[in-house]
Amino acid sequence: MDESASHRRWIVCASRLLALVIVGTATVVSAQPQIPKPQTTQPQTPTSSTAELLKSAAASEWREISPENTLYLELPGGRVIIELNAAYAPVNAAAVRALVREGYFDGSLVVRVQDNYVVQWARSENDERAKSMSTKTLKPEFVRAMDPKLPFTRLAYPDTFAPEVGFSEGFAVARDRKLGQTWLVHCYGSVGVGRDNAADSGNGSELYAVIGQSPRHLDRNITLVGRVVQGIDRLSMMPRGTGALGFYESPSESIPIRAVRIAADVPAHERVDLEALRTDSKTFALLVKSRANRREAWFKVPAGRVDVCNVPLPVRRKAR
Amino acid sequence: MDESASHRRWIVCASRLLALVIVGTATVVSAQPQIPKPQTTQPQTPTSSTAELLKSAAASEWREISPENTLYLELPGGRVIIELNAAYAPVNAAAVRALVREGYFDGSLVVRVQDNYVVQWARSENDERAKSMSTKTLKPEFVRAMDPKLPFTRLAYPDTFAPEVGFSEGFAVARDRKLGQTWLVHCYGSVGVGRDNAADSGNGSELYAVIGQSPRHLDRNITLVGRVVQGIDRLSMMPRGTGALGFYESPSESIPIRAVRIAADVPAHERVDLEALRTDSKTFALLVKSRANRREAWFKVPAGRVDVCNVPLPVRRKAR
Repeated sequence: MDESASHRRWIVCASRLLALVIVGTATVVSAQPQIPKPQTTQPQTPTSSTAELLKSAAASEWREISPENTLYLELPGGRVIIELNAAYAPVNAAAVRALVREGYFDGSLVVRVQDNYVVQWARSENDERAKSMSTKTLKPEFVRAMDPKLPFTRLAYPDTFAPEVGFSEGFAVARDRKLGQTWLVHCYGSVGVGRDNAADSGNGSELYAVIGQSPRHLDRNITLVGRVVQGIDRLSMMPRGTGALGFYESPSESIPIRAVRIAADVPAHERVDLEALRTDSKTFALLVKSRANRREAWFKVPAGRVDVCNVPLPVRRKAR
Repeated sequence: MDESASHRRWIVCASRLLALVIVGTATVVSAQPQIPKPQTTQPQTPTSSTAELLKSAAASEWREISPENTLYLELPGGRVIIELNAAYAPVNAAAVRALVREGYFDGSLVVRVQDNYVVQWARSENDERAKSMSTKTLKPEFVRAMDPKLPFTRLAYPDTFAPEVGFSEGFAVARDRKLGQTWLVHCYGSVGVGRDNAADSGNGSELYAVIGQSPRHLDRNITLVGRVVQGIDRLSMMPRGTGALGFYESPSESIPIRAVRIAADVPAHERVDLEALRTDSKTFALLVKSRANRREAWFKVPAGRVDVCNVPLPVRRKAR
């Protein structure tokens, strides 16, 4: 029983988080319901807790998150780390990377926080560089062609929105075999490229992160370019904007972003090297099964299912 | 086009919220993706925006939220309003009401904020009244028997977790005809009764509200007793706890709740009288359809579906 709240009524039973093992629990592991206590009293139920499963994962089941695909947002409260997805959004990921490298987002602002929806950041709209971007366009990458070389680990439960959902290299994805298309899906922490009405009007100069119930109706309508792998809580705690759509009404409310950098460009001592559990690994398959069939004593009726946006995508500090 | 952010790239197209009409937009309407701009250019697409639909709803399509079922949480930042559900959780709603009336929650604390999961509040665990509650039990109301007298407006899209989902008197619900059972489902803003491992150990003295991706695996495992109808953002913005499961590690971090009151007990001048769109109304059916088939120019591929937890459940100040 955890000491910090020993008499509390749990929503699920108490357990210790492996805080030393897991980086960014708010993002990754505790972003999902809490890790269960190992069940020694139910030998007939073989599913293990997330913590146990991760502890016993082989080193080869983890992949490095490429520093070239890693963004650091340096906020007043600390760092938010985003993994770009160059497999699903190569053009948009490259455009964001280029903007980051030219310092475009240094001194940018969180301009919008809409409860149960998104946080959005951009340069001040009165600024010359922002104005110069206003006519720039970029290829939309709302979906991509299915490719047998791209991993797809199917989640075998029904989904409201797509014929098939699953995971590809650490991201929640969907696909439609009839159309031959696959796409990143909008879950808590997904990062996308804001756009105007024209499909090609998103140019990477305004980005958003999801901080609420998965807005899956945006799938296939906007380019998702990555996901927050650490520090989503720094975004989700921000004051909600009181303007229409959650925009901050006065510039003084906007939250400054000191800098956005690519991990590969950052001196080693300022880097946080991360690795992610491979979503095509055996341990991940066990994790999915264990999340779908919660066997801890607290649970009375295991769901037998899990939503593609409720499966934890574990990330940890890279072993040295 | 909205003035406050006229050059911004929208995630969906800009529009004005009917802020004067809708109370608690952060909870209710903007808790969902933003309201679309009326589409005058697409006469072939009959679905209307949420704002338009609500404007033209008949008075009889709104129901009063009973003051007897309305809780006010008075927080430092303002009020959070919860509607209790006496149809699905009569015993637990009565227990919560009784605790509120004896002042049990006055001076209670938000003790836990776990990102993408829940906010939980209770009395300090060292306090005598909290200790006296620790052995109290209450009938679990995880599910209830289906009853033809209870409205059920089915949502005709597949759901990951339940054979059927829909709405009953303003709440998202599920049902299983084979089992003859129906239950409240966990969505953003749902309010439940924390418990220990024993099913009857939730006694109403610790409550939680969902502030993240719908934790549907909790359905049928814990008693949901209501939902936040206004002010959920006051909870979802709170600093995340750094202890296990998001508990605050020191009592000084806990956020005080000045008082919890039942609206019926509050002097008229301190009341906010609310009414909710009837979920068995024609306007609500049109709203569901319009959310499933977004026709605004911004959308390129309407989902054709909507999740039970993404349908707005509109609430407004009662017309006088």
